[in-house]
Amino acid sequence: MRTIILCLTIIIFSSLNAQISHSDAAVQLKNKGLKDLAAFEMLKDLTANVGHRLSGSAGYEKAVVWGKNALVKAGADSVWLEPVMIPKWVRGNVEKATASSAGRKYELTVCALGGSVGTSKEGVSGEVIEVHSFDEVKALGEKLKGKIIFYNRPFDKTKVNPGEAYGGAVNQRTSGAIEAAKAGAIGVLVRSMTNAIDDEPHTGAMRYVDSIPKIPAAAVSTIDANILSEVLKKERSVMVTLQLSAKTFPDVPSYNVIGELRGTEYPKEIIVVGGHLDSWDKGTGAHDDGSGIVQSIEVLRLIKSLNVRPKRTIRAVLYANEENGLKGGKAYAARESRLNEKHIAAIESDAGGFLPHGFGVSTDSIKYEKIRSYASLLEIVGAEKIHKGGGGADISTLQSLGTVQIGLDPDSQRYFDYHHSNNDTIDKVHPRELELGAIAMSILIWGISQDGL
Amino acid sequence: MRTIILCLTIIIFSSLNAQISHSDAAVQLKNKGLKDLAAFEMLKDLTANVGHRLSGSAGYEKAVVWGKNALVKAGADSVWLEPVMIPKWVRGNVEKATASSAGRKYELTVCALGGSVGTSKEGVSGEVIEVHSFDEVKALGEKLKGKIIFYNRPFDKTKVNPGEAYGGAVNQRTSGAIEAAKAGAIGVLVRSMTNAIDDEPHTGAMRYVDSIPKIPAAAVSTIDANILSEVLKKERSVMVTLQLSAKTFPDVPSYNVIGELRGTEYPKEIIVVGGHLDSWDKGTGAHDDGSGIVQSIEVLRLIKSLNVRPKRTIRAVLYANEENGLKGGKAYAARESRLNEKHIAAIESDAGGFLPHGFGVSTDSIKYEKIRSYASLLEIVGAEKIHKGGGGADISTLQSLGTVQIGLDPDSQRYFDYHHSNNDTIDKVHPRELELGAIAMSILIWGISQDGL
Repeated sequence: MRTIILCLTIIIFSSLNAQISHSDAAVQLKNKGLKDLAAFEMLKDLTANVGHRLSGSAGYEKAVVWGKNALVKAGADSVWLEPVMIPKWVRGNVEKATASSAGRKYELTVCALGGSVGTSKEGVSGEVIEVHSFDEVKALGEKLKGKIIFYNRPFDKTKVNPGEAYGGAVNQRTSGAIEAAKAGAIGVLVRSMTNAIDDEPHTGAMRYVDSIPKIPAAAVSTIDANILSEVLKKERSVMVTLQLSAKTFPDVPSYNVIGELRGTEYPKEIIVVGGHLDSWDKGTGAHDDGSGIVQSIEVLRLIKSLNVRPKRTIRAVLYANEENGLKGGKAYAARESRLNEKHIAAIESDAGGFLPHGFGVSTDSIKYEKIRSYASLLEIVGAEKIHKGGGGADISTLQSLGTVQIGLDPDSQRYFDYHHSNNDTIDKVHPRELELGAIAMSILIWGISQDGL
Repeated sequence: MRTIILCLTIIIFSSLNAQISHSDAAVQLKNKGLKDLAAFEMLKDLTANVGHRLSGSAGYEKAVVWGKNALVKAGADSVWLEPVMIPKWVRGNVEKATASSAGRKYELTVCALGGSVGTSKEGVSGEVIEVHSFDEVKALGEKLKGKIIFYNRPFDKTKVNPGEAYGGAVNQRTSGAIEAAKAGAIGVLVRSMTNAIDDEPHTGAMRYVDSIPKIPAAAVSTIDANILSEVLKKERSVMVTLQLSAKTFPDVPSYNVIGELRGTEYPKEIIVVGGHLDSWDKGTGAHDDGSGIVQSIEVLRLIKSLNVRPKRTIRAVLYANEENGLKGGKAYAARESRLNEKHIAAIESDAGGFLPHGFGVSTDSIKYEKIRSYASLLEIVGAEKIHKGGGGADISTLQSLGTVQIGLDPDSQRYFDYHHSNNDTIDKVHPRELELGAIAMSILIWGISQDGL
């Protein structure tokens, strides 16, 4: 009897442990990743040979080809494109704001916000009114008619996580033009969304509603925002002329780019790892979200290198059009073939390629505890902080399918210094920090692929 | 009876909580720190107006004056200098290594290791032999006579903490010349102590023993180490001529710089916070250890801003000569006035001004648990990882006095990219990351100053 129990124990034990223990897998993933530093090599290639890649641009189309090739090279079992219609907004050559007061002129460093209408060649001209909130806009009401509104509420520096500070300021950028136009304003300047004090304007998505006039909107560098604010304290009246050549074209066809390692036992159970392949048309989108893209591809390459097939399918999705439409995420989730698949978890990396601290997880408490049980494995790369709440814009469209939402949590201090600006370039990315994020995701995904969720 | 107990409870409670709760203090320290970002302003000043500050140099003497003034400005109750004799080693203008083989010549990017002897004007010339360990040196034995030894064991990239990789490689730098000279070698080249692949040589301390010939030793950039290694695979024989003008002078008198906030209840119980004021003579010592210096001063400024006096004395010590002698740390601990003081804890920041993760603590298990109890307060800045083992070179001299040794633990990925090289400059320091380290130390030190240890 004892012998039988022992045998059974051995059989169960070896079956549970398949061909490799989770901790052995973690060590192998770590060593392979840190030796090769392949995510950074991919990112160098993407940023140097594709560059920025806004939806609807030639850069995005190059990125689609790049992504397909990179997934093949990483060893994906299959690589394919899924069609999606994406917006096409073009900045053009002109983005200029000239402030004048008491006979002096000053050029502000600005850039059009993504989606802004353009102006006539002469631009729009009006007196600048500085505000810090929509309440202030409402209170000023009629006084704003014909004016240019300057939203200048800075990041709250006392927030330890600049992402929180961004959350507290970004409505100026996204909805500022709507609120200003309601009050009769003719244009909008928005302080760049960053803690950094420099002369780079940070673009980003803004919205209109059809029932309200669409007025041009531009980001102004934090240095020029500070100068303008100081000048406004001194001068009775400051005029600004804003000239933008931005234009929106009809949507164009493009693709999400997808590659996967097919699961041996439950191939229809899918774990998505992804980021967005599009970027803004400033810098080269190295952190946002080139990092998430190359980390997602690297997850496949690293797990492939284990030489043990995953039981469930691990799928890297390079989403189209996160920045100004989320059309990629929506199309992926809505595709008919998804009905035959069960997306058990989705992990997004879209917070920069910095040192990973852990993961944010949105799911029920039972699955949350299952995810948390991988913390001890993640300690090997210092990414063991698991907390409730997290995910990413692209994968949020899978929520309706019951998919557990997971977001990689890297260091956050430097992200918004670069975000959506010419500063977002490869020299801001550290090869080992980037790789450690890919390794952390690989460890977690490998666990889920073997254990289910 | 109940009333009496209630009253006593209230009295004890309000006495324990003094004028401010630990968590209120933590919030105030965080907000004040992140609003002012004063540590970075100090570091800009130190690096721009003092620059590098090797022991025995004019730079170090300027740093002493700078440190004194900065402590006064931060609001220390008293600021003073304590004398210490420190070494004086001067690099001079010549550091040159020329490799030649098969009629080709190649200049290697090198710098003298700290403490190296110089060469004659013509330098030393010999065939280069690449080795990776002292065992290899011993095995080669006689064959190394008259040769130049090239230590080329790189960092182990698979170590997640580059500090561990440094620990596994640095004996080549510290003791390589001794081991090489034992075998009759005439000079030493050492691969720079870094994971980075670039063309900057990284200096650092090396030793001699009097019974063995003192041979010149230089660091070579990782790019040139890789090239030299490749050439050695191809060519039968590569010669190197090494020319160094380095020279050691007699010790000179200088100072540790000290400032404190005097404790109200137990002024003789002291918590030291410190770093080292000296740096190598490359770059401007922004991370190593300008960061630790300005963070230590910032701790006084932040705690002063609470407007509640600490019960125990908080003392910032800007140590002399950590890099090549530890004379500052030794003199501080050996000073007679220390006998009247009880150093309950010492915290050192000497691992770079990066985002703090927590603290390493060397003490007995009871005091360790007391320190760990502050983790929940430290969560406010994400610095709650407390682990066993830690401290710093300067404060290690207080171990014999029974002082709890604590080291601030920041992100470690980038530190050795800059360490002891021209890359260690202010642009590598992030104002908020630096400040968060100062805030984390302030929170911990405030707790200990009120509760004792």
